[in-house]
Amino acid sequence: MPRPIILGVVGDSAAGKTTLTRGLVRVLGEENVTHVCTDDYHRFDRKQRAERNLTPLHPDCNYVDVIAQHLGHLRAGEPILKPIYTHSDGTFGAPVYVKPARFTVVEGLLGYHTEAMRQVYDVRVFLSPPEELRRAWKVRRDCSRRGYTTDQVLAELDRREADSEAFIRPQERYADIVVRYLPSGDRDQEHLDAELVLRSSLRHPDLSGLVDGDAGITLSERSDEVILRVSGSVEPETAAEIEEAIWERMHFASHLRSERLGEFTIGTDLHRSESLAVIQVLILYHLITAKASLALGGDGTRAPSGIPEAVHT
Amino acid sequence: MPRPIILGVVGDSAAGKTTLTRGLVRVLGEENVTHVCTDDYHRFDRKQRAERNLTPLHPDCNYVDVIAQHLGHLRAGEPILKPIYTHSDGTFGAPVYVKPARFTVVEGLLGYHTEAMRQVYDVRVFLSPPEELRRAWKVRRDCSRRGYTTDQVLAELDRREADSEAFIRPQERYADIVVRYLPSGDRDQEHLDAELVLRSSLRHPDLSGLVDGDAGITLSERSDEVILRVSGSVEPETAAEIEEAIWERMHFASHLRSERLGEFTIGTDLHRSESLAVIQVLILYHLITAKASLALGGDGTRAPSGIPEAVHT
Repeated sequence: MPRPIILGVVGDSAAGKTTLTRGLVRVLGEENVTHVCTDDYHRFDRKQRAERNLTPLHPDCNYVDVIAQHLGHLRAGEPILKPIYTHSDGTFGAPVYVKPARFTVVEGLLGYHTEAMRQVYDVRVFLSPPEELRRAWKVRRDCSRRGYTTDQVLAELDRREADSEAFIRPQERYADIVVRYLPSGDRDQEHLDAELVLRSSLRHPDLSGLVDGDAGITLSERSDEVILRVSGSVEPETAAEIEEAIWERMHFASHLRSERLGEFTIGTDLHRSESLAVIQVLILYHLITAKASLALGGDGTRAPSGIPEAVHT
Repeated sequence: MPRPIILGVVGDSAAGKTTLTRGLVRVLGEENVTHVCTDDYHRFDRKQRAERNLTPLHPDCNYVDVIAQHLGHLRAGEPILKPIYTHSDGTFGAPVYVKPARFTVVEGLLGYHTEAMRQVYDVRVFLSPPEELRRAWKVRRDCSRRGYTTDQVLAELDRREADSEAFIRPQERYADIVVRYLPSGDRDQEHLDAELVLRSSLRHPDLSGLVDGDAGITLSERSDEVILRVSGSVEPETAAEIEEAIWERMHFASHLRSERLGEFTIGTDLHRSESLAVIQVLILYHLITAKASLALGGDGTRAPSGIPEAVHT
C-alpha cells in the first residue's frame, strides 16, 4: 500500500480549521481519512499550565519532537500510539492506536513549527482570518461548546496574544496555501470576502481564463504567489464555474463529486459559503493529484524547488 | 552522543525481572539507566480484558508493533511518549516523555515476540524459573504488593497458563543468556541452584580456568551453548573469584564495582544470593563491553553470525 497523503491545516485557535476539514472529510469518506490533532501533544495539563503561566500555544508546552516523530510514522504508513488531551476537563486520557488511512489530516496550532514537522506534509494550508473575526468565532465556540463565559474567553485571548504573535502567526510563511477571510464589515458569514494565497511550492491549476472581476472573482500575481480573491457577493454560478473547472482537472475522481462543499454550521443551523466551497475544492485538487502521483510511482506533487526554505528563527 | 545500550529482560510474570535489574541499575547509576516496561503497552485495560476473556500475555492484548517502534527510537537515541499502565487499578494514565539514557533496560512479558523487537537489544536475557518457584513468587508479590488473595492469584495463574505456554516461554529461544533457577527442594531462596545458559550470539568471557566442581561451580558445553551451574551451596569465596575474574575483564570500568550485587528483598528484609551476583556481574560485563565498543566506533558486541535466526512460528 502506498503511503498516505498528508494535509496540514494550521492556524490559531478558532481560525476555522475544523470547518474547513469537515467538508473535505465528507468528500473523501470518513473511512479514508485519519484525523490527528497536534493539540493532543500538550506537555502539561490545564492545571500545570496555570501553575507555570504557560499557554498551550507555546512550543515548550508541547512535545514538538514527538509530533514530528509521529507524523513521520504516519507518512511512512506506520501506526502510532497517539496521546489524548481532553478539552472538556483539560487532562490527558489513555492514548489511542491510530493507523494512517489513505488521507491523513493533521490539524493544530503548531504544525509547521519545526522543519522536521514541515517536511511531512503533501499540502500545507494556513488559516489566517483577521483577528476581529477570529475573536468572535472563538467566543461563540468556547461559550457554546466548551462552557466558558464571554469574559473568560476574551481574557484568555489577551493572555495568549504574545504567543500567537511569536509562534502561531509566523507559521504562515511555510504554507502552500494561505486562506484569509477579510474583515466582514456588515456582511454575514455566508458572504465573507476570501483571499487565497497560492504559493509556487505546489503546482496550482491555472484559473486565469475563468476569473471574472465583475462577477466577484479576481486573480493577481506578486513575486512567487498568485492571489485568488472571491468576493462575498460572488454569484453562486460564478463560484460553481471555478469549482467545475477544478473538478474537470481531476475527472478521474469524479465519483467523489459533492454538492455539499461550502457547508458550515452555526450552532445547529446549516449555512453555505461560496468562498469556502472554492477553497475546499482547491485543496481537494491537491490531495487527489498527490494521491494519483503516488499511485503512478511518483512521490506527490510538491515542486522540489518550491519547498519554502525559510530559516526557522 | 552514541546510541544507548539496550538490555532486554524478558520472562513470565514474577519470574524475577525486577530483582535482577534492580542490582544492575544500582551499579550503573539511576541517572544512567532508562527503564521501560513493555507491559505499559497493553491494548486493553483490565475491565476490557475481562470482557474479552483475554490475558495480558496474549500478543493481541498488546501493541507489539508500537513496542518495536518505540524501542527503535530509544536505540537511535530518540525520545518517546510512553503509555502508562497502572497495575494498582488496571487502567491507563497520561503518557510520559522518555529520553534514553546511556543504558536502557527493557523489561516485560513479550519483549522478544517479534523479529522487529528482537533486533534492538544489545543483550537479551530470559528468565526461566521452574513453574513451582514462579507460582510461589507470584503469590507472594501479588498478595503483598497488589492486594490479591492467594486463591485469586492461583486462579489467575491457571487462567494464564495456555498463553504462558504459547507466547511467553517460547521466547527463551531468542535469548543470549537464559537464567534458570532450579527447583529448590528444601533450600531457601538465598541458596537456589542456578543454571546460566550462555549462547554464542554474544562472546562470553572464558571461565573454564575458574570453575571448581567441588566448590559448587561447573561448566559444560552442548552444541552452541555453554552452561554455567552455580550451586546454591557455593562458597561465597568461590563465587567471588568468578565475579573477580569477570570484573578483571572490564577493569576500565572498575569505578563501578559494587559489593551490593546479589542483594534482593523479601518484604522489607534484605537477603543475598551468590548465584544472583554471578548472573548480574556477567550481564554487566556485556553491557559495559558493548558500551566500550560504541565509544570506540564499533557497534556493540553481538556476534553477527550469532543472532538467533529462529523463525517466528
